[in-house]
Amino acid sequence: MVTTAAILTTGTELVRGELVDQNSAWLSSRLIELGFVVTEHRTIGDDDEDFHRAFLELTARHTLLFVTGGLGPTTDDRTSACVAHALGVPLVRDPEALRQLESFILSRGFQVGESNRKQADFPAGATILPNPVGTAPGFTVPFQRASAYFFPGVPREMQAIFETSVAPRLKVGARTLVMRKLRTFGVPESHINDALAGLEVKHGVVLGYRASDAEIEVKVFASAIDDEDVRRAEERARAAVVDIKVILGRAIYAEGETSLAEEVLFALRARGLRLALAESCTGGLVSTSLTDIAGASDVFLGGVVSYGNSVKTHVLGVAEKLLSEHGAVSPEVAKAMALGAREKLGADVAIGITGIAGPGGGSDGKPVGLVHFAFALGDRLVHLERRFNGERALVRRRATKYALFQLLSLLTNPSLSE
Amino acid sequence: MVTTAAILTTGTELVRGELVDQNSAWLSSRLIELGFVVTEHRTIGDDDEDFHRAFLELTARHTLLFVTGGLGPTTDDRTSACVAHALGVPLVRDPEALRQLESFILSRGFQVGESNRKQADFPAGATILPNPVGTAPGFTVPFQRASAYFFPGVPREMQAIFETSVAPRLKVGARTLVMRKLRTFGVPESHINDALAGLEVKHGVVLGYRASDAEIEVKVFASAIDDEDVRRAEERARAAVVDIKVILGRAIYAEGETSLAEEVLFALRARGLRLALAESCTGGLVSTSLTDIAGASDVFLGGVVSYGNSVKTHVLGVAEKLLSEHGAVSPEVAKAMALGAREKLGADVAIGITGIAGPGGGSDGKPVGLVHFAFALGDRLVHLERRFNGERALVRRRATKYALFQLLSLLTNPSLSE
Repeated sequence: MVTTAAILTTGTELVRGELVDQNSAWLSSRLIELGFVVTEHRTIGDDDEDFHRAFLELTARHTLLFVTGGLGPTTDDRTSACVAHALGVPLVRDPEALRQLESFILSRGFQVGESNRKQADFPAGATILPNPVGTAPGFTVPFQRASAYFFPGVPREMQAIFETSVAPRLKVGARTLVMRKLRTFGVPESHINDALAGLEVKHGVVLGYRASDAEIEVKVFASAIDDEDVRRAEERARAAVVDIKVILGRAIYAEGETSLAEEVLFALRARGLRLALAESCTGGLVSTSLTDIAGASDVFLGGVVSYGNSVKTHVLGVAEKLLSEHGAVSPEVAKAMALGAREKLGADVAIGITGIAGPGGGSDGKPVGLVHFAFALGDRLVHLERRFNGERALVRRRATKYALFQLLSLLTNPSLSE
Repeated sequence: MVTTAAILTTGTELVRGELVDQNSAWLSSRLIELGFVVTEHRTIGDDDEDFHRAFLELTARHTLLFVTGGLGPTTDDRTSACVAHALGVPLVRDPEALRQLESFILSRGFQVGESNRKQADFPAGATILPNPVGTAPGFTVPFQRASAYFFPGVPREMQAIFETSVAPRLKVGARTLVMRKLRTFGVPESHINDALAGLEVKHGVVLGYRASDAEIEVKVFASAIDDEDVRRAEERARAAVVDIKVILGRAIYAEGETSLAEEVLFALRARGLRLALAESCTGGLVSTSLTDIAGASDVFLGGVVSYGNSVKTHVLGVAEKLLSEHGAVSPEVAKAMALGAREKLGADVAIGITGIAGPGGGSDGKPVGLVHFAFALGDRLVHLERRFNGERALVRRRATKYALFQLLSLLTNPSLSE
């Protein structure tokens, strides 16, 4: 029997485009990591007839079905009733689920209404999947060819139920899949694709890519059938990773679950260095990226968003003469911003960033997308410049990642660049 | 005949969850604005058999089908061939499409290969939909009950083809839909839902909601059949909007296509005021939101991200005594930050923000999620505090929007709050 998985997301707000469905991609990623093949996503509104048809079709066609949405307290939350109808069984109120959801609601100081109690109704015979972070439990039933799993639509709750109750079940009997992730920056996906052509066949692995703003995540999958084979799969993945590291070289900045911002904070921490920023065209985005990470404050002191020239002179101490002679977007001003931020904020390392994010403000000599970066690090003052393509938001995001990537390179390979 | 629309997005990267499908939501939104009913989204990988089955099912079930992906130059781009196969017609190379795509590629300094030429192959009898921004044109064919439209998967290209060639076609004969959007902040969706219950029936309109980080967009749809009815539909929508404004009051901050950051910049500009920021727990996110908008520099001078206490004292001039007596997260320090930012950056208006984004750093007296805001505006210094629920990223985003919303309220209703 061919094992394939499908995902059915339900909700009128999804099918009307009021909300982008993030659950399907999340579930697919996790299922693929667990060794399953996902071949179909489907989204329908809160409609009994559409649900019935999709449920019949997908459980006939696939061996695993994951359904999100329709488990809430309101009248358009109809999933349990629809499933009971399809199975030809009654809805049964589960006393344990009822007790848990009542105590969850009461602990938050709310009253329990009949619409809440409805969330403890399940098709007779269903196995309940507890919700560790919300009121609506999930459940699972077998139907036609498939095991069908049902989750609330709230991503956080769906993910919590999946990780605590579903992933452990699925692992039993699934192919074990070895996965390794390499994170690269600055090389286009098509180039990586071409450069790594042949490695899949050579090592008996599958490669996957995920691109966002000049960052490409390269995933190496190797599947195993039994314990002995797990070791061989790990060996195949390892050999592929070695080849990829040789081929992509310094474009790989890290391996595993991390980010450029986390790696920068880690590298600073390891060296006992504290960072300050002076941002112009990125407008606070580098700062935001670093402070997204909890605990950034031990190595990130802060920054100055010097959008107006007066802020460059008064707060960062950039000389008026530099601004008038070279313009705000120049190597000289980027350097003075970095030095100013380092001194005024009392940091060890600083970055200065000035450029033209667009769409206006460009000229022949200084086109939209041109950004100057300066890195003040010990007695070194490194200037880099780069022209980024794309619209304003993209220029800003790419410049932010470029700044973090180059700082990471300078910290981890002190002999490089200038 | 019931008119319903479906969207089929194709691409192995989508079904594997390597990329979140944004096209379905975009197309649904536009179709609903044009007066159509979308009842199903489907996503499949690059697989001929899956495509064939989905194409047959969806064109039998719906009167409009929109398909994205599979029109590129590589071997896994198979949409045209699959459609030709389903229709039982040959693929035909279109000379005009070939000429255009060759000149597009040559103008960018690349060579034209056979894989590119393949993009000028269409099922015999298809109507070609020119691509104003890329190489792959779209096309449309009638099949079974449906008119089926095919687009490249790149959102920018799909959107350009939709707007230039498809929307004008669809408008002919479609119901005209009047839509108005109201933007609210700070009221939960369930509350708005309850508060506006009954308005749909009263005014003959449909209400739609879109929530993100404490912002709820309320859409009022009224459909019309002919020219006379457009005016009546507009009148119904207008009457509903009047009622909604009465019911939701100050929670509505604007109408139409705008954002909190744009409204803040607009309000500052209208009053000739320049803004500075002092951000601690939001770490640059307020600054980033404002500088996301092109042209922010005329009224937004910049800000200081004072993550470390030394930055609060050295750069913003917050007295050490305030920090030691009240702690960094206190009304006193928020006020001193706002006053310091206004003075040091030479602004007219300033916001100071200090709080505990979490997950660490909370205590009984100062729990995670607590944020103090101070607004320095003329001779007024307004303090507000708020406790936000949710994880770190959510606390930061909600605090950012709260700061912008409150500044907007102070600017537009100077008599309010304190």
